[in-house]
Formats: sequence, structure tokens, C-alpha cells
Amino acid sequence: MKSDLDSLMHARGLDALLVFGDAQHNAPMYYLTGGGHVNNAILIKKRGEDAVLIHNDMEREEAAKSGLKTLPYSRYPLKTFLEETEGDSTLLSARRLKSMLRDCGIEKGNVGIYGHTELSTAFGILSTLQKDAPEYTFIGEPASDSVFLRAMETKDESEVARIRKMGAITTEVVARTAEFLTSHKTNAEEILIKEDGTPLRIGEVKAKINLWLAELGAENPEGTIFALGRDAGIPHSTGTPTDALRLGKTIVFDIFPCEAGGGYFYDFTRTWCLGYAPDAEAALYEEVRAAYEDIISRLEPATPFKTYQRMVCERFEANGHPTPLHTDAPTEGYVHSLGHGLGINIHERPWAGLTASDDNRLRAGTVFTIEPGLYYPSKGMGVRIENTYWARPDGKFEMLADFPFDLVLKMKS
Amino acid sequence: MKSDLDSLMHARGLDALLVFGDAQHNAPMYYLTGGGHVNNAILIKKRGEDAVLIHNDMEREEAAKSGLKTLPYSRYPLKTFLEETEGDSTLLSARRLKSMLRDCGIEKGNVGIYGHTELSTAFGILSTLQKDAPEYTFIGEPASDSVFLRAMETKDESEVARIRKMGAITTEVVARTAEFLTSHKTNAEEILIKEDGTPLRIGEVKAKINLWLAELGAENPEGTIFALGRDAGIPHSTGTPTDALRLGKTIVFDIFPCEAGGGYFYDFTRTWCLGYAPDAEAALYEEVRAAYEDIISRLEPATPFKTYQRMVCERFEANGHPTPLHTDAPTEGYVHSLGHGLGINIHERPWAGLTASDDNRLRAGTVFTIEPGLYYPSKGMGVRIENTYWARPDGKFEMLADFPFDLVLKMKS
Repeated sequence: MKSDLDSLMHARGLDALLVFGDAQHNAPMYYLTGGGHVNNAILIKKRGEDAVLIHNDMEREEAAKSGLKTLPYSRYPLKTFLEETEGDSTLLSARRLKSMLRDCGIEKGNVGIYGHTELSTAFGILSTLQKDAPEYTFIGEPASDSVFLRAMETKDESEVARIRKMGAITTEVVARTAEFLTSHKTNAEEILIKEDGTPLRIGEVKAKINLWLAELGAENPEGTIFALGRDAGIPHSTGTPTDALRLGKTIVFDIFPCEAGGGYFYDFTRTWCLGYAPDAEAALYEEVRAAYEDIISRLEPATPFKTYQRMVCERFEANGHPTPLHTDAPTEGYVHSLGHGLGINIHERPWAGLTASDDNRLRAGTVFTIEPGLYYPSKGMGVRIENTYWARPDGKFEMLADFPFDLVLKMKS
Repeated sequence: MKSDLDSLMHARGLDALLVFGDAQHNAPMYYLTGGGHVNNAILIKKRGEDAVLIHNDMEREEAAKSGLKTLPYSRYPLKTFLEETEGDSTLLSARRLKSMLRDCGIEKGNVGIYGHTELSTAFGILSTLQKDAPEYTFIGEPASDSVFLRAMETKDESEVARIRKMGAITTEVVARTAEFLTSHKTNAEEILIKEDGTPLRIGEVKAKINLWLAELGAENPEGTIFALGRDAGIPHSTGTPTDALRLGKTIVFDIFPCEAGGGYFYDFTRTWCLGYAPDAEAALYEEVRAAYEDIISRLEPATPFKTYQRMVCERFEANGHPTPLHTDAPTEGYVHSLGHGLGINIHERPWAGLTASDDNRLRAGTVFTIEPGLYYPSKGMGVRIENTYWARPDGKFEMLADFPFDLVLKMKS
């Protein structure tokens, strides 16, 4: 939780955090500011003190909404630094940054740097300042295990409430999508057709999904996966917009929107067959469903996430499927990991991969996905089932949004 | 244009470009890959050669759509590097990156680094590799003047066509917004009311705008400004969602969506008064309108953009308004610059600021905004007018989407 940041900084020997970029779609900045139209800002947090937000003057009111102490960029006029830097704009930016650090009481020490932002500029400024001011040591952390990801790993009740609300929005959109699909007629080739007699295409379904998300106050900055048949067998294929919807093919519908303005995410997948499921598709689905139920029944508080990844791999391998346990980067079978934490990042700690460290545990306050799948592009099919869970303080695991698991969506006519 | 990249690299002594991050919402990666669901990729371009896209194995089909040469990450198995790096995950990533660079024929030299991405990880890897492999020099460029921004500064016809299409979508949404607003009734306090008798609020208008954008195949990753009265006087206030719409107040409606999936932007502003405009608001509007028309009539090919910024400042100062010409970071009067280039970035070269270098010119192929404004939050008002222009090869300047300039939107009842 946010209140853990100071102790996490202490444990890693960080004297300060320095975050670059916008407040939206930039997880560490969003985490400390709460978002809003604050662009190209700099946030400085000294250990043990509140963060300071340095912002464009025009965005002063948006910056003030963060509740943080704010400083406008005009407090650091470029002309102050022009002479001493002799036209070197990167050195100028570096000296200006140093002045900001000193104003926040940071005269030396280890400064962790963060932000989803323009790498080129920030790298130029920081490597220049590193040479110009050796009293600082700038430190980049692996994104998968930064102090921010450690703090974000456990959520307080207000964060869980926001994720739960996104779950309600997400499943509402999924329900509308099911209703929309099953209301279509089909032709002799088992293709869904619109009122004008032309085929319904995936691009049109996605446009509807985007519409409903916007209507309900959500956005999908990372897109939506709506993949049919062979595409469903390629986990991160987003689907082919021109593909016509047809009966009896697996559809992997993986939807992972966030609050409008770039806040908390939800992550959810269902696999559907419209009208009917052929035997092979139905069997693959049942296998994934059984694996999913098995894992859910075994969840125990504070267990390393990868324990369950290994269980699923062993189960699937016993049935003859390739998995990452004994195959390098398999492209058929069970080809990814069981889940991931989620919050302001769609993917964050705890990690479930077999090589993840043991401290990636399903401890109280974590919110994570469980999403086993089996993929056979060569057979024109793929299956994934995914729900988002919260490890509650009382030791129970709660699915944050409910939705039927049915593989087959019956057509209405 | 893209074809300028090699000569730009040569002029700056860059032997290679190294781009990190996703293909969406990451301008340099989008520019070379065309977007798509390719996440956390690495793109390497040696000068004089085509770019190589290194991607997650699961995203192989999406990566292939780029038309570039692709390499899956599985070609660089972690275990190859585990022993030599003794558990140091950042050094491991650095050695792995070095292996990729060598596979792309880059054994040494100056490597420009780019990407809208996670700064912490990339900074950690690059500073580690810089020490580990001194045969490379990693170079960060100022975002406002990188080789990418230089290449992107001029657009080919296909890029202009995409921006023009976004202009048509943008103005369609603006027209729907005007229709929506003027269809409302008002109460005795001049507040717009809905059918249920409650006030229409800005948050509801923005939800409609998001809906229409999604429906038309656009998204607004940077938000939308719909700011009323005092908020309209603060250029980058996005508006207060709970504010009720009312007659006779300036509304600054600045809308800057991009193609769904993170492509080309459009940028457009109108200032409206619903029902009627009080004298002070009307006078402020006329002053901005006249300045706008004056600038448009003076545009000449290949002129430095800041020439026009200076003209507008002088004009407004003659009328008694503070401007950046003689006031540091003014908060009332004319408080920003006249415009900016736009493309895959909402803000890019050419720059119009008074301190921009002379080579920021309105040369053929540039696409840019003209957006004078006057802002008086203390008087509860602000005005901005903005259109997007293309400097055509024939020397003419073309507004890429037409829309009425009227300040007053007459209510229908």
C-alpha cells in the first residue's frame, strides 16, 4: 500500500523518488497524484516526506487537485540557467532538475527514477546530470519489481472498491456483447448477418464494445482481444477486424478496461462458441474449466503465485499439452502464465511465472487474475477463462465480478 | 518524412536507433511499425538498413503485420545469460540487449534511444550496459528535437489523409455536441436542464463526447477540454465535471482525439456562449477572432513559426494584454504559444514558442495548429479558436476540417 513506500525506500537505500511524465496513463505518477490533466510534470518524493508536484503553470489548478504540495515550472525560469549552460539544452534541463531536487531537500544520495514517459529526453537529462552532479546516484529499477510495484502490490479497501466497480462495468459490457451477438440471424454458411444481409464482422463488434465502455465511464487503452478460431489459438492476437462471426468456432473475448482518465483496471476473459460447440472445442473448454476450478479450490493465503502455475503446468502436461514447465516458449498447449496482479497497471505484482521470485505471494490485499488456457492455432481453436480475485484480509479469495461460464451462447433465432 | 531518417541519423552521428515499448501510444514505435498489439518490444534500426522488431513470442502475428523483419524474444533465452550475470537481473537484461544489437550488425558506435515507455527499467538497463560495453555510446535526445521529431515534422500525402479524416471525425463530434447542448431546455436561472428537470452537467457532456468518438473510430487518450466560465480562463483546465451548463458563459471546447489504437491526432477548439453572449465575452471573442484571421492571412511558406507568435503577442500587447513577449509565464491575457505541429504526437515540431529555434518553419508538408486565445479567469471567461492546417507542396495553407466559427449557439427552445 501507499503507506509502505517509505519503508520500501529505506530497504532499498533510496533517499528519494523522482517521477517523470503525465498524471494519466503513467502508473507511478497516477498513484501519487490521483491522475488529472497534468502533463509533463516532475514529482519528487524525499523519504519520510510528502511528494512535491512540479508542473506547467497552465495546469496549476489540475495540479492542485492532487492535494500535494505543488511548484510551477516558472519558479525555475530557463533564463536563469541559459548563461551557465551555454546553449546546451540538455545540460540546462539537468541543472534545472538539480535545482528542483535541492528545493525538495535532496542534496545528495540515491534517487530512484520512474515514469511511463519519453525515454530519450529523460535519459539524456539524467545521464548528463549524473556526470555534472556526482553527489547523486540515479537508479533505474526493473519495472517488474520497483518500489512502486511493491507498494501497489497490496490494495486498500478504496482501491478494491474501484476495481470492483470496473468489474461491474466490464461484465455489463460482456453481457451486452453476448446479447448483441445472439440477436443476429445466421445464413446457410453459419455466418452471422446483419439486417441488411451482410456479415457481422469483428471490427463492428469491437466498435460496439468501445461505445459501451465509453458510455459506462471506462476506456481500453490497451485494446480488447476478440479473436475467432485460429486467432483464438494465439493468445495475444487481438482478432482480425474483417473476420465475419460464425457459429461453432471458439471466440476468446479478453477485455481489460480501466477507469476513464487512466485509473484502475479490470481483467476478464470468456471463451464462447456461438450456437453450438463441436466436440473438440467442447472438450478443450471442459479441460480448461476443470483446471480453473481446481486452482480456485486450492488457493491458500500467502502462497507463492507460481505454486499454482506449476500445478496447472503439471496437470496440462499429464494430459499431453506442452507447457512452459518443460518446453521453451511453447506456441501450442498452455503457453503463458496463470495470472498476474492488477491495479493501476494491467500487469503488476504478484507475478505467477515459473521464474518469479518466491515473494510474489497471494498475500492479503493483492488483486490478481486466474486465467488458464489451452491454445491450438493449428486446429483453429483456443480457450481461456479469466476472472479477477481479491485476497481478502479474512483469508478468503473473492471473485470481484460474477458472470456465467457457459461456452455456448444460444442464438435467439 | 520517414525517408529522411537515415540522413538525419547521419547528420547527428547516430549509427543506430533503439526504440523501447509498445507499438500503441508510443510515437517512434508506432511510426516505424504502424501500431498494433505489440507490447514491450524492442526496435533496432541500423543506419541505412531496415528496422528489426524484437517481440514477445505470443505477439508474433501482430508483430509480423508491421512488415518489418521480426525476431522473437525466445531467440534470446534468459538461461543463456543466467550464469554469467550471477542473478543480477539488470545486467542480464543489458547483456541480452547487447546480443540483440550485435545480431542487428551494431558492434559499436552511437545509439540514439527512444520510446514512450517505462523509464526506470530502460534507464537501469542502459546505464548498466553503458558501463559493461563501453564500445557503445547511448544518447538521449531532447524530445522536442529528436531525429524522430525531425522526420515526423513533414508528412506525406497518406499521413495528411489520415489527419484529415480525424478532422472530419472531430468536427462531426463537435457538431453533435452543439446539437445536443442546444436541444436542452433552460430554467429561470439560465441553467440547462434535462428531461427529468435536473441540470445538465459537464461530466455528462464529456461522456457523450467519448461515446461519439468511440462510435466514429477515435479515442482521446489525452482527454478533452470542456471548460466553462472561470475554468475557460485557465487554458489547460479540463473543466469541472459537476459544473452545470448555463447560458451566457464562455465554454472553451478543445478536442484532440486520435485514431483508435493510437495513431494520428487532430486538434480543434471552439469557444461558445449558449443562448447569448454578454458584451464583455463578445468583445473578447472578437479580439481573438480578428487576431486569428490576421495570422491566417499572413501565413507564408517556410517562415519560422515563432514569427507569427511574436506578431500575435505584439498585437495583443498593443491592446493591453499581458503576453509571453514581456511577461514571464503570464496567467492572464495571452498565456501560451500560437500553435504546434501535430501528427502521431499531439504536440510535435514545428514549435511556435518565442524561444524555439529558427528551423521550426511552416515548410511544405508540416501540419500544425493555429490557436490564439485570451484568458481572464478573474473575470470568469476565456476564449480560444483553433484549427489544424497543412502547408501544402503548392505553397498554400489548407485548413484540414471546416466548422462554423460562431460564438453564440442559439438554443432551440
